[in-house]
Amino acid sequence: MTEPRVKPAQFTLTTGPVNCYPEVLLALGRPVSYDYDPVFQDFYEALSRKLQKAMGSETMPVILQGEPVLGLEAVAASLVGPQDHVLNLVSGVYGAAYGFWLRPHAASMTELRVDYNRIVTPDLLRQALHEHPETTIVALCHHDTPSGTLNPLPELAAVVREHGALLLVDSVSAWGGVEVSLEGIDVLVTGPNKCLGCPPSLSIVAASPRAWAHMKANPTAPRDSILSVLDWEEAWISGHPFPFTPSVAELNGLDAGLDRYIAEGPETVWARHARTAAAMRAGVKAMGLDLWAAEEAFASPTATAIRLPEGVDETALRTLMQTDFGVVVSSGRAETFNKLIRVGHMGPTAYPMYAVIALTALHGAMARLTDRPLNLGAAIEAAAAI
Amino acid sequence: MTEPRVKPAQFTLTTGPVNCYPEVLLALGRPVSYDYDPVFQDFYEALSRKLQKAMGSETMPVILQGEPVLGLEAVAASLVGPQDHVLNLVSGVYGAAYGFWLRPHAASMTELRVDYNRIVTPDLLRQALHEHPETTIVALCHHDTPSGTLNPLPELAAVVREHGALLLVDSVSAWGGVEVSLEGIDVLVTGPNKCLGCPPSLSIVAASPRAWAHMKANPTAPRDSILSVLDWEEAWISGHPFPFTPSVAELNGLDAGLDRYIAEGPETVWARHARTAAAMRAGVKAMGLDLWAAEEAFASPTATAIRLPEGVDETALRTLMQTDFGVVVSSGRAETFNKLIRVGHMGPTAYPMYAVIALTALHGAMARLTDRPLNLGAAIEAAAAI
Amino acid sequence: MTEPRVKPAQFTLTTGPVNCYPEVLLALGRPVSYDYDPVFQDFYEALSRKLQKAMGSETMPVILQGEPVLGLEAVAASLVGPQDHVLNLVSGVYGAAYGFWLRPHAASMTELRVDYNRIVTPDLLRQALHEHPETTIVALCHHDTPSGTLNPLPELAAVVREHGALLLVDSVSAWGGVEVSLEGIDVLVTGPNKCLGCPPSLSIVAASPRAWAHMKANPTAPRDSILSVLDWEEAWISGHPFPFTPSVAELNGLDAGLDRYIAEGPETVWARHARTAAAMRAGVKAMGLDLWAAEEAFASPTATAIRLPEGVDETALRTLMQTDFGVVVSSGRAETFNKLIRVGHMGPTAYPMYAVIALTALHGAMARLTDRPLNLGAAIEAAAAI
Amino acid sequence: MTEPRVKPAQFTLTTGPVNCYPEVLLALGRPVSYDYDPVFQDFYEALSRKLQKAMGSETMPVILQGEPVLGLEAVAASLVGPQDHVLNLVSGVYGAAYGFWLRPHAASMTELRVDYNRIVTPDLLRQALHEHPETTIVALCHHDTPSGTLNPLPELAAVVREHGALLLVDSVSAWGGVEVSLEGIDVLVTGPNKCLGCPPSLSIVAASPRAWAHMKANPTAPRDSILSVLDWEEAWISGHPFPFTPSVAELNGLDAGLDRYIAEGPETVWARHARTAAAMRAGVKAMGLDLWAAEEAFASPTATAIRLPEGVDETALRTLMQTDFGVVVSSGRAETFNKLIRVGHMGPTAYPMYAVIALTALHGAMARLTDRPLNLGAAIEAAAAI
Repeated sequence: MTEPRVKPAQFTLTTGPVNCYPEVLLALGRPVSYDYDPVFQDFYEALSRKLQKAMGSETMPVILQGEPVLGLEAVAASLVGPQDHVLNLVSGVYGAAYGFWLRPHAASMTELRVDYNRIVTPDLLRQALHEHPETTIVALCHHDTPSGTLNPLPELAAVVREHGALLLVDSVSAWGGVEVSLEGIDVLVTGPNKCLGCPPSLSIVAASPRAWAHMKANPTAPRDSILSVLDWEEAWISGHPFPFTPSVAELNGLDAGLDRYIAEGPETVWARHARTAAAMRAGVKAMGLDLWAAEEAFASPTATAIRLPEGVDETALRTLMQTDFGVVVSSGRAETFNKLIRVGHMGPTAYPMYAVIALTALHGAMARLTDRPLNLGAAIEAAAAI
Repeated sequence: MTEPRVKPAQFTLTTGPVNCYPEVLLALGRPVSYDYDPVFQDFYEALSRKLQKAMGSETMPVILQGEPVLGLEAVAASLVGPQDHVLNLVSGVYGAAYGFWLRPHAASMTELRVDYNRIVTPDLLRQALHEHPETTIVALCHHDTPSGTLNPLPELAAVVREHGALLLVDSVSAWGGVEVSLEGIDVLVTGPNKCLGCPPSLSIVAASPRAWAHMKANPTAPRDSILSVLDWEEAWISGHPFPFTPSVAELNGLDAGLDRYIAEGPETVWARHARTAAAMRAGVKAMGLDLWAAEEAFASPTATAIRLPEGVDETALRTLMQTDFGVVVSSGRAETFNKLIRVGHMGPTAYPMYAVIALTALHGAMARLTDRPLNLGAAIEAAAAI
Repeated sequence: MTEPRVKPAQFTLTTGPVNCYPEVLLALGRPVSYDYDPVFQDFYEALSRKLQKAMGSETMPVILQGEPVLGLEAVAASLVGPQDHVLNLVSGVYGAAYGFWLRPHAASMTELRVDYNRIVTPDLLRQALHEHPETTIVALCHHDTPSGTLNPLPELAAVVREHGALLLVDSVSAWGGVEVSLEGIDVLVTGPNKCLGCPPSLSIVAASPRAWAHMKANPTAPRDSILSVLDWEEAWISGHPFPFTPSVAELNGLDAGLDRYIAEGPETVWARHARTAAAMRAGVKAMGLDLWAAEEAFASPTATAIRLPEGVDETALRTLMQTDFGVVVSSGRAETFNKLIRVGHMGPTAYPMYAVIALTALHGAMARLTDRPLNLGAAIEAAAAI
Repeated sequence: MTEPRVKPAQFTLTTGPVNCYPEVLLALGRPVSYDYDPVFQDFYEALSRKLQKAMGSETMPVILQGEPVLGLEAVAASLVGPQDHVLNLVSGVYGAAYGFWLRPHAASMTELRVDYNRIVTPDLLRQALHEHPETTIVALCHHDTPSGTLNPLPELAAVVREHGALLLVDSVSAWGGVEVSLEGIDVLVTGPNKCLGCPPSLSIVAASPRAWAHMKANPTAPRDSILSVLDWEEAWISGHPFPFTPSVAELNGLDAGLDRYIAEGPETVWARHARTAAAMRAGVKAMGLDLWAAEEAFASPTATAIRLPEGVDETALRTLMQTDFGVVVSSGRAETFNKLIRVGHMGPTAYPMYAVIALTALHGAMARLTDRPLNLGAAIEAAAAI
């Protein structure tokens, strides 16, 4: 091979968008209904109830009509008001970036930071809340995707609940791939385009009764705007008008994605996400590479971040993986850029065989870029043994 | 028939969402690519260029990742700044509503209002600008959909250009169904989900060089927000990162919609929109009903608004049309609600036969709700004679 | 309009292939499974059982892997043997043509013929059997599509049963659109590509226990051939091998077509077929044209044949209907060619509105080809009144 | 793992049906046209010409409306007549089975047999023709799929041409995955459902001018039957009627499959088939298993047959591969059943990474069934090194 030329991917093993389940791709092609058609409105209500059940949400989740960055921006604007003191937990690039949207709405914002290859612990959180007893809202990025690390949500939620603040969680790239109890969570933002195996275009927001009350009492919460969460509160009820035209085709896709998730069984889905990530980590280590996470226990079941060896350029590496093996993976972002690559294990790619595929491509590309001895055979055997 | 029960629509003849072209529905099911995949980035650049050519835009149009209300809200926030004096032309519900998004960003906003069954004339506009020489931005709703009336864009644009203000046009439900020259238009907002026959989920914004300059100079133009237009300026260039994950499946649909538009030929497409609307209007009049538009020349080629006879309830009418004939049409909105119904002629429904279908269903439902003598035979003959 | 140029059809209102239900088109795109995959074999068994239930068949129907001409040819070869005396009932082109496949396998074949715009009556059949008491097999084309006439199946079946012969029925273009009891029928051949709204590619054969016994005893029944029915007897049982690779995508389509048929409810489906045909016939008569059927009671609920007025060329007529109105209909065949045109009412086109569409196009094209006064208004009013 | 339960396949790596290219699955959902619609007839003619060009056929290839067993049976019946002496070359189960269809039509049939893990050589063929100078037709199975062996087509064709007999080739599972020149071939039968990545439902028959002449002169060649090749000779010409309704959806799929084949470039397609098979063979050997082919040079680029070690049951093996790894492969057939398993490299699965996937699953399943030491690491390294 002399001229690496990029060819269409055979395997999109990224942290999202991932390719979708076949059922979802087909559902996108269903006839597009008028949003005032009662048949569509019945569908929307049934879809909302299906989503509520899948999430275990006390109230009806809201579907916002844009990929999860919309959900995150809208929730920041809707929940955080001039009386709020925010504690933003930062264990990675996305957690840090979220402060940009939280801060302008709040009376104050404090950050609890840890290294980007570590996680926020309950002890650190307890101490931060002790130092900032005025905190009314704690914000957490559950899976900080650019690091591939997963914060201990239930334990952190318990600490927040004890303190009394509201807990706002970005679980975009974790929900659906790992068990998430809404117990102790006030707002959870996620999307269909990661572990549910749907395309990017919608946000999902589940809020507790007290979070709804907080948003309604917030004088700066947007109304009559795409950034409004409140506008959508009753949109799910058949017969109620939508604030604006929802993304009909994407909702059809979400419907199919939820049906598949429920039919397969959430526990089964979570288990294969976990097993795929475990296979990937075992393979990476056996190959002779290092995980990005400071401790393996920090690594997410929905993505694996691999530290780049000295002198290996991430663009060169990813290009070779695509050119020579048809495998597309994700780079780092901001502070993690050019320090790691990431392999997603999400939805249709959360099967252990995809760890084998990723390891094979990773080894093949790496071998052209570094003299470091790397053992493909050992990697595959370790992955296959999980 | 005793118990009207709503059944799935056979014919969605609304003002949008309309059902999509078959090519578009199939394209939605294409594999979903990663947004950093160079193959996807090349596709996005090619798609943008295709769109630019179809629009005849001097600069590259921007695709925003939400249905056209996002485009409208984002453009209001991005273009209008504290130095701007806005003149909002109001000939209908949507034009009036747009003031809600324009006003907060501007130094001042004035309205030029006409009755909602009439259009803004060049003379009225000239006079308004004469009274408000400080005007820096004129906003116009091209086709005010809740009235089915089409403002004379080229003539109004000439008046604005003469004055020197920027012209911001909402052509969401007209572009693609009628000829639209960008000559004299500074910002045009449209979307794929009307006359291009795609699902609702994207906005298209074409801006003139001086509009781009105005946005960049605007201190309140959003950045790092879903409401930002500026963030997307260079997103079309392959290799440049996207501000956030674009709606991959919807872009695939837009690609197919544009291909179809170009293959059929824009002139042919516009001609069948015009002919379908003409057939509909001829049929409505021959049946013995009245158009909403004060003069037939005001009526849009992309939708026909029909005035409800005294005592006919619009919900009862639309329900019967769906229940007994499988035809779904649109109601009025706000001030036009319960005063008219609307039949869309957009994309795949812009064929004269759909006027026949709509007239048949309209007559059948009307006959159950009013004693007014209505002539179906004459209606069909008039429509078929166009 | 000067140069009629054929354009893609907007409305395919033929006697088949008809366009498919959207659910079916989507199902065709499901992943294609290996035929030895146990998951596929389970699917095939479940599909067969679903089909059996929908048909009300005592034994398991057989799905042959080619459009219904395969089923008809295979059944002729499989059922008819050197000991058989066949009585072929001929009320149209397809009934007559079937003799070509029946005769070579039989000891003798007799025909009972009626004019091609009439039907076979029980009396005529009784008399024919009286004259040919040696008859072992009676063959009947249920709906002779090139004439649009429907033979009285239950009454004829009773006469055959009384005599003791086997009854072989071609119900390709009737089953699924009209009620068909298998009571008294020994072999019924149909296909998914007419009233089930699926594409053409499969045959369905339901045989009674004594028909199975007859085929097994037939020394000339094909084996190890695409023409073999017997090879497929146990192919539906998961774990049994298929004689050869079945048409996986088409089976996925059939699965969706059956699901839709069952979900909508067969009675509802039959009722809308009947109502559409009644609307069409009422419109044709009110317009001033003649039905092909000698008596309206002979006309099929799944297609309407309209006699061409003197001097109207069928190709010119159908071309104009497609060119100017986007409507495609069927011509006659053989003896009925250039004497009639046919409008199908099958599956997704069996809604009364399609009669309106067909009548509008028919009138518009006819008006350019004949001076005969034809009344579109009356036609539509008559159709809409059904 | 205690209870192996079969789960849906993630990877269908069989010798066909293989899963289809995404483009093909989408094309199956295109609207279904009427076969007399001129737009469809133009499409069919264009499709035939595209196929002719892709095959390099002097005459127009015929598309028969059933999966390739139909093509094989129809060609046997159409080409072979009572004056013909057939020499059937048998290097495997499919070649042997074909004699069943050739023999009844011929004056005589002789077989040249080699072991089912070997190929027919030019020398053996020359000798057989020397012994049977009366031979008028030589029949060859190009890739005898149940053995995964590829006969040397160009060399054998040269010998046949020298002798003067007609050469009939079954290239169902080779054409499109390996270079096939029609030079010296009189009838080639193939199908879209192997290396073109389409579903099973169509046959393709390319015949030389002298083969057409031979069929026309054959008094026993079927006419007015699904087994007729002659009926379809001119069906490709727009305006000519089809013998019966073609499989519209499948033709749409074939159209997309051909477009993809041509766009990617046949040489590129063949190269990745060859490379995938080479990777698979290298991996099998490095793992410690044996190829079925007596010499590696006999192995087909479109499938790899692996000899089962003593005591390993093929059903147990394949079940474990599916249950535990989501990988479906093919068994042997007849004489090769339970002696080998087969991994297909066809169309969308002809990428070297699929060899890695197959090897991983094969090793994992084998390890549970035999004590024979098998080296996964070495297998993957060998495969990845190709």
